[in-house]
Amino acid sequence: MQKFSVTILGSNSALPANGRNPTSQLLNVNNQYYLIDCGEGTQMQLRRYRLKMQRISAIFISHLHGDHYFGLLGLLNSLHLLGRTAPITIICPSMLKQIIDIQMNAAGGKLQFPIEYKFTDDVQKRNNKRPIYLDKHIEVEAFPLKHRIDCCGFTFKEVKGEYKYLPEKGSEIGIKIQEIPQVKKGKNVVRDDGTQIFFKDVTHPPDLQRTYAYCTDTRPLESTSEYARHADVMYHEATFLFIEASRAKQTYHSTALKAGEVAKNAKVGQLLIGHFSARYDNLIPLLDEAKQEFENTDLAIEGKEFEINLKDTSY
Amino acid sequence: MQKFSVTILGSNSALPANGRNPTSQLLNVNNQYYLIDCGEGTQMQLRRYRLKMQRISAIFISHLHGDHYFGLLGLLNSLHLLGRTAPITIICPSMLKQIIDIQMNAAGGKLQFPIEYKFTDDVQKRNNKRPIYLDKHIEVEAFPLKHRIDCCGFTFKEVKGEYKYLPEKGSEIGIKIQEIPQVKKGKNVVRDDGTQIFFKDVTHPPDLQRTYAYCTDTRPLESTSEYARHADVMYHEATFLFIEASRAKQTYHSTALKAGEVAKNAKVGQLLIGHFSARYDNLIPLLDEAKQEFENTDLAIEGKEFEINLKDTSY
Repeated sequence: MQKFSVTILGSNSALPANGRNPTSQLLNVNNQYYLIDCGEGTQMQLRRYRLKMQRISAIFISHLHGDHYFGLLGLLNSLHLLGRTAPITIICPSMLKQIIDIQMNAAGGKLQFPIEYKFTDDVQKRNNKRPIYLDKHIEVEAFPLKHRIDCCGFTFKEVKGEYKYLPEKGSEIGIKIQEIPQVKKGKNVVRDDGTQIFFKDVTHPPDLQRTYAYCTDTRPLESTSEYARHADVMYHEATFLFIEASRAKQTYHSTALKAGEVAKNAKVGQLLIGHFSARYDNLIPLLDEAKQEFENTDLAIEGKEFEINLKDTSY
Repeated sequence: MQKFSVTILGSNSALPANGRNPTSQLLNVNNQYYLIDCGEGTQMQLRRYRLKMQRISAIFISHLHGDHYFGLLGLLNSLHLLGRTAPITIICPSMLKQIIDIQMNAAGGKLQFPIEYKFTDDVQKRNNKRPIYLDKHIEVEAFPLKHRIDCCGFTFKEVKGEYKYLPEKGSEIGIKIQEIPQVKKGKNVVRDDGTQIFFKDVTHPPDLQRTYAYCTDTRPLESTSEYARHADVMYHEATFLFIEASRAKQTYHSTALKAGEVAKNAKVGQLLIGHFSARYDNLIPLLDEAKQEFENTDLAIEGKEFEINLKDTSY
């Protein structure tokens, strides 16, 4: 099974405090990297955890509050100084392009690598989930959250792999080398002489596709449970404890209890909570509260890498 | 003598590396704080060294390369979240206002405190030194440097203090309480009955004014030695070693050797060098090189606080 994990680079809400950084996560899919949000200090965090920034092929920005993107310009600058020429894709609200352009312009310079933008502006308006990014490793869909400004959640799903060729079975029935790619694609072979080779006879099915759902910043929503249904791992913000529910509502954030409820309703495999308010030095009460609703919950602690394991469907 | 010191928050050039952060320094004048440049991560550095960010009354931005201001928006955001209402002054190129405005606009919010801007746009064109900021603690002048884009150096000079009243001398000649403020201002008192009190009889002169000169990013210039002449402490960039002189010239930076030469020609008391290229893990060769020209040199290491001591004029 290929590598599929998420490393937490920052887990705090707006105010960096208690040694915690603003939001950023790094997704590793088969050693290709995807950055999700990019708060101030993200490039330093990547260095700290020895994660090679040049492996990042796409950056997803949920919304334009600074704690989710103030590290982006510095990161792009460093990629440039380190000699990057490969294009990078940024998935974001279109206003971010203006913000990047004005700062590049002020610096009197130009990046050596192209930025390819995919804008999320229509996601809130359409009020539905839609495909936003695809490469050979991953397919990503964006869906609307409910925050003070437009904000997107994302589901990251592995691209369906090839069927796994079984060499012993193949040689048993005398398959030719040039026929192997076809059976790996799940296609039967029919030779000119009419001989048939059924791909199922010489292959195992591909691994099941795993999904990671990323949901921040937002009020708790029933729709989030729909959009992220059956995700293997869900990250959901849990800015406050339930005793601060009115503060959560007022600031368009979620409590740990409600994050647990969203995960439970979505029937996900595992819940990670984060985006903690600076008022909490000790995070255990937030964890305990989420577990009231959803037992398999973990704290999104900086530096911690979580494997995206297939959810247990035996129950 | 009042407190006058500079604490180094970041000492690296564009690429954060070797545990060093991009440029920022905190000036402490009588426990009033002034921030000079604000690279990414500055607010985290302030926390790390337990320097209260709300004490900052003015922020000086030398130029608009990101390693000198990418931490500014995050810092302003945090000041807001921490409840600041007191105004802050930002001394900077006018384009920085546009950069701040577009990001505030994107976030759909508004700072609770006013920003008062003082723009440096004319400094390069006038090609001279001019006053740019004044409060009851400090007077600041800006002068042109030579970099790839417009860039200012600054001299920070203590405001001249009051004459120091000598109570014993005063009571000896029978001074009245309401006359003391006048002699402390260096003015003689003439009473209605014609009695004269000479301020020099009842006071000591105020402390000499100390000056800190900040010079980055720039090629080495004769004019810098003029503008910063006799500064007690000078900070000058020393991005490269002399063996990289052609690289320094091409990127409009200085070598450690040339930084030493500028300090020597300026007859300053002490030289601090910084803005080190990421290629240098060990900084001692840079220090040794600068000392070839100017013996009293120190490395601007992160977290280190340098007192601005009056230069020794005995030699």
